[in-house]
Amino acid sequence: MNKITIINGPNLNVLRLRESVYGGVSIEDINAGLAKRFPDVDFTFFQSNSEGALIDCIQAQTGADGVIINAGAYTHYSHAIRDALAILKCPAVEVHLTNLWARAGEFRHKSVIGEVCRGVISGFGADSYRLAVEAVLQDKG
Amino acid sequence: MNKITIINGPNLNVLRLRESVYGGVSIEDINAGLAKRFPDVDFTFFQSNSEGALIDCIQAQTGADGVIINAGAYTHYSHAIRDALAILKCPAVEVHLTNLWARAGEFRHKSVIGEVCRGVISGFGADSYRLAVEAVLQDKG
Amino acid sequence: MNKITIINGPNLNVLRLRESVYGGVSIEDINAGLAKRFPDVDFTFFQSNSEGALIDCIQAQTGADGVIINAGAYTHYSHAIRDALAILKCPAVEVHLTNLWARAGEFRHKSVIGEVCRGVISGFGADSYRLAVEAVLQDKG
Amino acid sequence: MNKITIINGPNLNVLRLRESVYGGVSIEDINAGLAKRFPDVDFTFFQSNSEGALIDCIQAQTGADGVIINAGAYTHYSHAIRDALAILKCPAVEVHLTNLWARAGEFRHKSVIGEVCRGVISGFGADSYRLAVEAVLQDKG
Amino acid sequence: MNKITIINGPNLNVLRLRESVYGGVSIEDINAGLAKRFPDVDFTFFQSNSEGALIDCIQAQTGADGVIINAGAYTHYSHAIRDALAILKCPAVEVHLTNLWARAGEFRHKSVIGEVCRGVISGFGADSYRLAVEAVLQDKG
Amino acid sequence: MNKITIINGPNLNVLRLRESVYGGVSIEDINAGLAKRFPDVDFTFFQSNSEGALIDCIQAQTGADGVIINAGAYTHYSHAIRDALAILKCPAVEVHLTNLWARAGEFRHKSVIGEVCRGVISGFGADSYRLAVEAVLQDKG
Amino acid sequence: MNKITIINGPNLNVLRLRESVYGGVSIEDINAGLAKRFPDVDFTFFQSNSEGALIDCIQAQTGADGVIINAGAYTHYSHAIRDALAILKCPAVEVHLTNLWARAGEFRHKSVIGEVCRGVISGFGADSYRLAVEAVLQDKG
Amino acid sequence: MNKITIINGPNLNVLRLRESVYGGVSIEDINAGLAKRFPDVDFTFFQSNSEGALIDCIQAQTGADGVIINAGAYTHYSHAIRDALAILKCPAVEVHLTNLWARAGEFRHKSVIGEVCRGVISGFGADSYRLAVEAVLQDKG
Amino acid sequence: MNKITIINGPNLNVLRLRESVYGGVSIEDINAGLAKRFPDVDFTFFQSNSEGALIDCIQAQTGADGVIINAGAYTHYSHAIRDALAILKCPAVEVHLTNLWARAGEFRHKSVIGEVCRGVISGFGADSYRLAVEAVLQDKG
Amino acid sequence: MNKITIINGPNLNVLRLRESVYGGVSIEDINAGLAKRFPDVDFTFFQSNSEGALIDCIQAQTGADGVIINAGAYTHYSHAIRDALAILKCPAVEVHLTNLWARAGEFRHKSVIGEVCRGVISGFGADSYRLAVEAVLQDKG
Amino acid sequence: MNKITIINGPNLNVLRLRESVYGGVSIEDINAGLAKRFPDVDFTFFQSNSEGALIDCIQAQTGADGVIINAGAYTHYSHAIRDALAILKCPAVEVHLTNLWARAGEFRHKSVIGEVCRGVISGFGADSYRLAVEAVLQDKG
Amino acid sequence: MNKITIINGPNLNVLRLRESVYGGVSIEDINAGLAKRFPDVDFTFFQSNSEGALIDCIQAQTGADGVIINAGAYTHYSHAIRDALAILKCPAVEVHLTNLWARAGEFRHKSVIGEVCRGVISGFGADSYRLAVEAVLQDKG
Repeated sequence: MNKITIINGPNLNVLRLRESVYGGVSIEDINAGLAKRFPDVDFTFFQSNSEGALIDCIQAQTGADGVIINAGAYTHYSHAIRDALAILKCPAVEVHLTNLWARAGEFRHKSVIGEVCRGVISGFGADSYRLAVEAVLQDKG
Repeated sequence: MNKITIINGPNLNVLRLRESVYGGVSIEDINAGLAKRFPDVDFTFFQSNSEGALIDCIQAQTGADGVIINAGAYTHYSHAIRDALAILKCPAVEVHLTNLWARAGEFRHKSVIGEVCRGVISGFGADSYRLAVEAVLQDKG
Repeated sequence: MNKITIINGPNLNVLRLRESVYGGVSIEDINAGLAKRFPDVDFTFFQSNSEGALIDCIQAQTGADGVIINAGAYTHYSHAIRDALAILKCPAVEVHLTNLWARAGEFRHKSVIGEVCRGVISGFGADSYRLAVEAVLQDKG
Repeated sequence: MNKITIINGPNLNVLRLRESVYGGVSIEDINAGLAKRFPDVDFTFFQSNSEGALIDCIQAQTGADGVIINAGAYTHYSHAIRDALAILKCPAVEVHLTNLWARAGEFRHKSVIGEVCRGVISGFGADSYRLAVEAVLQDKG
Repeated sequence: MNKITIINGPNLNVLRLRESVYGGVSIEDINAGLAKRFPDVDFTFFQSNSEGALIDCIQAQTGADGVIINAGAYTHYSHAIRDALAILKCPAVEVHLTNLWARAGEFRHKSVIGEVCRGVISGFGADSYRLAVEAVLQDKG
Repeated sequence: MNKITIINGPNLNVLRLRESVYGGVSIEDINAGLAKRFPDVDFTFFQSNSEGALIDCIQAQTGADGVIINAGAYTHYSHAIRDALAILKCPAVEVHLTNLWARAGEFRHKSVIGEVCRGVISGFGADSYRLAVEAVLQDKG
Repeated sequence: MNKITIINGPNLNVLRLRESVYGGVSIEDINAGLAKRFPDVDFTFFQSNSEGALIDCIQAQTGADGVIINAGAYTHYSHAIRDALAILKCPAVEVHLTNLWARAGEFRHKSVIGEVCRGVISGFGADSYRLAVEAVLQDKG
Repeated sequence: MNKITIINGPNLNVLRLRESVYGGVSIEDINAGLAKRFPDVDFTFFQSNSEGALIDCIQAQTGADGVIINAGAYTHYSHAIRDALAILKCPAVEVHLTNLWARAGEFRHKSVIGEVCRGVISGFGADSYRLAVEAVLQDKG
Repeated sequence: MNKITIINGPNLNVLRLRESVYGGVSIEDINAGLAKRFPDVDFTFFQSNSEGALIDCIQAQTGADGVIINAGAYTHYSHAIRDALAILKCPAVEVHLTNLWARAGEFRHKSVIGEVCRGVISGFGADSYRLAVEAVLQDKG
Repeated sequence: MNKITIINGPNLNVLRLRESVYGGVSIEDINAGLAKRFPDVDFTFFQSNSEGALIDCIQAQTGADGVIINAGAYTHYSHAIRDALAILKCPAVEVHLTNLWARAGEFRHKSVIGEVCRGVISGFGADSYRLAVEAVLQDKG
Repeated sequence: MNKITIINGPNLNVLRLRESVYGGVSIEDINAGLAKRFPDVDFTFFQSNSEGALIDCIQAQTGADGVIINAGAYTHYSHAIRDALAILKCPAVEVHLTNLWARAGEFRHKSVIGEVCRGVISGFGADSYRLAVEAVLQDKG
Repeated sequence: MNKITIINGPNLNVLRLRESVYGGVSIEDINAGLAKRFPDVDFTFFQSNSEGALIDCIQAQTGADGVIINAGAYTHYSHAIRDALAILKCPAVEVHLTNLWARAGEFRHKSVIGEVCRGVISGFGADSYRLAVEAVLQDKG
């Protein structure tokens, strides 16, 4: 049974309150949807607004088969999360609900963690997470 | 009765130890001064050096009429705090003890949180906070 | 009795015609409001679209206790106004009706005069001026 | 009868003395040529070397059907003229005698006023003004 | 009888499908309008989405009295089209339906072909082409 | 039955000859794999090294339910392909075999077409295409 | 008898009030000193804070043998003054009281008018003007 | 007896898992080695992945004779840690296991905390810490 | 017998019409001269203005011993041609008639294809091609 | 008797061979002219193409009353000469035969040594040196 | 017995004359101090203001166990010294008396030689050299 | 008999010790090879690590028919060598053993001397020099 950890970063715990680009979903819904759709996957779900707590969590994934991370705004400047991801033995997949390239705000067009991820899936709303799980499973295959 | 939350970020808890540009005040003095000057305002005071704790606090302000934030050095690079402020329903006011534009250090001339605040008050020492409270009250008025 | 000069720069004389971000106020209204609210202040009001006339006016403020300036678009490139403000013996406060950081247009995020001002108040509409007057009075104490 | 204002900025009053790229015409000749060619247009002609005077003139065009402006070197840095043009209710057309893109001098390749104009006509000498008048008339239809 | 070639670049063949800024016109309409308005001009009309085909066409204009080119998005990066235009013996006029300076997207504010054109007409919709024809005819005079 | 067009750009027809980062797959294999895996999808496959031919193909997708495009190196500079994609009524998904953020070469970290795509999937080899098809189906579903 | 015009720009009329780098001199003293030291020169002295007035003055120097200009802060951004100087038939000499290269503030290290001047003399206080007069006289020789 | 605090930042707690450039050492080994080599120094050892916790720790060093800090990736962007270090009364020494200048990744060539440290020692593996202790002792000595 | 392919890009088919820097030669002359000077080389000559056609041609050189390419203006921005050259098994030599570093126009000082070529020969007119052939032959030995 | 050292840098020994902008003078002529014009000054003349030799010479000027330096192309990048000049007790004057701001070549518009000089005189040919001597003498007074 | 060469670059021979940041030490004192403190090391001391002489010296260190270099201002731009250091078989340590990151002057924050050194020690005055020797010895150890 | 001077700059005297990209050749071998291959050429060979000595040598080439220069790392920043080459009456050819565009290190992609050379040959190892000699002979021929 595959073990996949879903890590969500800052402000993703209050997704329903955010701008309309996020489509009104919540992380709880997304997580529940994943658990239901992939009954054979052993999921761990984690969310924190704290950069340090996210790093602690990433470091603890020694037994995971895959890590799926939406680092929120930390995506754009947290070299420390990047360094934590670089240590992972299993593949990490970077996901975003919105398409970063199509967002206003120059700073959203740059990812400092992408460099150490297996791949990036960006722009499909909650479905970005589902596709990421499929990518990890295919990889394990 | 108006509810206003005063949020102070990194190193503002040790203000008296910092460079002379800060004028020797302390956050405790400022907070006490505000409480005394505005007896009809229901203040909440919060300070943390942690980016994540500041985001947690901002997210929790669902009942506030106004948020006044001095994000310290996070002002210049914390897109995560910016995203948290963007969710607020009440107005946020960015304050700084010193005038950022007049400080040495190019990095101090840029705010990544200003974009989602109602306004900015910078450079009046402890009085920056008093003016911010007045701005919020006027707004509610 | 405190003497405060309110200086408004280019296009602020036709504020009612401008973009909706300015909220439909006029400088005349703002000035009248200040005079009414602060009966104990001896105000001088000045507006010009000309960079040179603004500099002349700033140089003439030798007897003022405070100068409050909204330099309009000159804020972003007039090093000459900056040099004039640097000569002032009394404090100058930079004000803006809108929050510069929240405006579209990269050029609006930069102030070349802020470096020589006591502080900046930006984003509170007509109330920005009122807060600036309070800041000057507090400073005089 | 259409009312069109032709505004010329700094150094265009001494065009004959300038570099050969300007082709030896004068603003007086151009204006006279326009008046002759378009007898049914009610022209106002204005020239000033002063940024403030140009802004004053633009603000006064409340009754014009179109404004044609050659802002000279102010084209490249006067955000204040840009703000004045943004207020106009009638269309503004930016004209240049020479083709800015083909001039030496990097600074001549950038217009800060173009953003708020209906269109730009650049490079046809005196004929740039004639074409601009035709564009305004077509627009009025 | 004057020979003028109208060259349209990528995506201008599907103009009606594009963003509302283009105003719902089609190149066919524009071309037909030009032919009708200027019965004494011998027009050649060409459109291609291919950078190479546009260069081939430009090189073939040895007998033209004028070339009017809307290079679409190639305007912003095709140094190869620029080099082809530089060879032309007759004047080339750069046209755009929209005002490039007023469009969102920094890349749209830069033309690499303008340097070798006689002039630029930008922002008057279909009328930009008509004005360009007039500019060429005036030039031939 | 859903209609999906798979468009591959320059040098993807010779994928097997390229750097090891591409993993030795061929576009023919990928296409065959998609057809087999999604028997209920009506696929159209297109590849060209020519920027113009790719634009022609994109313009022709008026009946498609989704477009999946790997624009190869054109991803990084073809504003003309970007403009063609912007016209599409159905969603476009940008795919890449490799993770662009993790490739050497600064120019590979920038996409000029992402701005007009629904989402981006980058870094999963041939599986990037499969995930993109799933994303389109989910979107329709 | 040589005719030399000394033009001083913004804030040079209040030199005594400015930062200590200016050494406590006044333009009046400098002008008087020049008149005394060079009795055989027919001097014209002009000062204005207005960019337009400075341009008017430069245009009027048709009979001068030399123009010596300290454009103050306009030195750094007034392309309009640059264009006016470019028309002059006699040589213009750019002078500065302080050494621009040694001043703090990056913007002070750039001159946009230097390109059209005969030479630059910067950093010798009042003596900069004397040296400039000598340079003009030598040139006339 | 000298009191020296050794502060290690994000991902340094899992050093053995990181890239080979780190040479396989662990912070525990380094700390133990220091304690053994300098029996007369009263060491405090601290590590955290959290920016806020690191700031808390720095603020608490009021009794230390020296602080030696390896801020990991925070070195490159944490202005908040920089501000905390600026308050310290004792000298801070910035250390790095690897030579930042010789690392790939442009972001690793910039330190935002170096400005407020006594000195920097970078590139000697575990020995960087030993040298930093000697530097502090010499300074006290 | 060595097989060498000479590939010329946009506007090189009309070289005689171009700026005097090209010295009045034609590609036909250059090709004929090469064939005559190196009778033992089996040359293939190709020219196209189309980026895609150039890529097609490069991909087809599986049997060549060397490719000599003058990519014209595509040199400066065609990452797609760069990717095609990267696939070649035989060495590619980049040639230019003029010395790119000595040409006006900043954009001509940068080659995006040089990175994947064996070497560059620039500035010797038609002789650049002859030298490139010699370089290839030397390489084959 | 005042002691003044005239230091000339790279390629100034062959001035007569250089571009026409230098006006055909030679350093020998300039030096001889200075000696003749200022019989009461004790001149030392030095020229070298070597950066190190120039630094040696500057360090040796412990007894000079003034140093006049034309550092040639080293002006634009030799921070080492800058550091040597910073040590001088007497004033250094930077001179240039041509007006750096008016020269083509962006690199010529920047001086890294100006920051530590008393002043700059640029653009008066041989007379630049004469004026510099006068500036030094005036300074000594 | 370890052989270590201490190389000092431009202006370090006159250290006592320089700015107060250097603390009044001399290279002779530093060298004598090293010789005394490390009697078992066979030191070679070299200083030159000439870039070429420094390169010659570096090339000659074929028998050294370590090279310690303070390249002075060459640190910031001498790619030639960098290339010489890259050839060394023994480790090179870059030292600076002051902390480069804490110095004013942007150019001092960049080292072009650091990339090829074992490590960097910056900011401890004369003690920087002592620490560098210890680092070399430890490395050999 | 043609006179050609071969000038090699810093670190080319120790080529055998350098990185493998240089292919293990030595300047002595290259020079000997040239002398043998071109018996009818009167060669002068010069190498120095010193910028000044290289400039001296270039200035002395008044009788040469051609100068071939590999300026090593000075290629990238020595404007002084550039100025010396600009004086030469005979053509100068810039050579490099490796292809600069294909080297890692951004600084290696820029030549400041290329602007004044006849041409550039880069990337053919020792053969770059042979090709340069042929280019000079052809030029003379």
